[in-house]
Amino acid sequence: MNDRFRFEMIAFDADDTLWHSECFYEEAKAGLAAVLAPYGVDKETALAILHETEMGHLPLFGYGIKAFTLSMIEAAVKATSGQVRGSDVQAVIDLGRAMVGHEMRLLDHAAETVARLAESHPLMLITKGDLMDQERKIASSGLASFFDRVEIVSDKTREVYARLLERHGVAPERFLMVGNSMRSDILPVLELGGCGVYVPYELVWVHEHGEVPAGVDGRYYEIDHLGQLPGLVARLEGSV
Amino acid sequence: MNDRFRFEMIAFDADDTLWHSECFYEEAKAGLAAVLAPYGVDKETALAILHETEMGHLPLFGYGIKAFTLSMIEAAVKATSGQVRGSDVQAVIDLGRAMVGHEMRLLDHAAETVARLAESHPLMLITKGDLMDQERKIASSGLASFFDRVEIVSDKTREVYARLLERHGVAPERFLMVGNSMRSDILPVLELGGCGVYVPYELVWVHEHGEVPAGVDGRYYEIDHLGQLPGLVARLEGSV
Repeated sequence: MNDRFRFEMIAFDADDTLWHSECFYEEAKAGLAAVLAPYGVDKETALAILHETEMGHLPLFGYGIKAFTLSMIEAAVKATSGQVRGSDVQAVIDLGRAMVGHEMRLLDHAAETVARLAESHPLMLITKGDLMDQERKIASSGLASFFDRVEIVSDKTREVYARLLERHGVAPERFLMVGNSMRSDILPVLELGGCGVYVPYELVWVHEHGEVPAGVDGRYYEIDHLGQLPGLVARLEGSV
Repeated sequence: MNDRFRFEMIAFDADDTLWHSECFYEEAKAGLAAVLAPYGVDKETALAILHETEMGHLPLFGYGIKAFTLSMIEAAVKATSGQVRGSDVQAVIDLGRAMVGHEMRLLDHAAETVARLAESHPLMLITKGDLMDQERKIASSGLASFFDRVEIVSDKTREVYARLLERHGVAPERFLMVGNSMRSDILPVLELGGCGVYVPYELVWVHEHGEVPAGVDGRYYEIDHLGQLPGLVARLEGSV
């Protein structure tokens, strides 16, 4: 490297990267299974039907708690062959309502890492899901002021990242994306020529899995937790 | 006026301003009433319960088809005192699904007015609702290329407009907003010192009603249809 290399933008995924999210989906799934158990539906069957329903709804309803709640309701109807009672439908709606109202739980190291990197780099938050729900979480996270840009998108494809980089005038090779989803946070960014830092979360929705492609030496990194990110960035920028 | 006055930005609401939307909600409401009729629930009661449920869900779930569908399901449970059958719950979900899949129907004059004003002014689209659904509509409208900015927001409050104007560097007194909702498109913009052009649509959700405030001479206008907009803009800019 001749000139000292610097990232023009560091972007973070939000759900399960900065704060807990999937655990609330898991809680709701357990709740759905409990609602369906008296109908003789075992948990495995209930969740398999739910997953199938979610995949069918994805192109229509997209990501987020509202789409998930609609999928839970439809799964309850299907799993019980239409025998589900109205009070149990209401119980499922209430599971979705509880998800929207859950408390904000930041992940370890998220606050100090974001604050520290905001001193040296423009930061962007890129998240998908329900607009209002994500706005509420960003506001209650206490981290909003560290981000120069917040982008709530309907999906995280290569095209979406390309458009964001263009809009903000960031060269892909100077863009670093940090997230817990190989499929949504890492692979499309690597494809564009950017850098990806994968931070695994204990729970991953099967839909978000993905394999690391070959031939991305020097552009793909994995860390155990966000506390390791500032050191990695410093190393990549050649200052260590 | 000394220098010739010009608007720096003309912004349009989308649903029921550029394309039909409320009619699909009305269709779904009629469908819900039909589902509930066999339970002895009359249409008026069904819609009153739906409206109450929607208002309760609004702070949690926001606007759009998914929130509306969740409200229809909960209203079906309430209106039948929990007696609604699973197959009818599925029928209500399918009403929501049909809304997402409905065809794009532009309003009269929308296409030529947007194309014409795009030649002379930066245009912005400001809409609320489900992210993915609005993106799909914008794409299928054929109008996307005329807009310099597309903003999908969770609500249209004075604060939201203020943030948008700041982000895009537009002075409120040089901002013109066009829409069919007094509450969401006109009043908050007038409060900020901007101009509002109200284009009534045949159907208005009661939640979107509002009274024109006094003391906004020269900043509030009403037109019968979008075909009258270019002439009005020209007049306001002093060229006629």
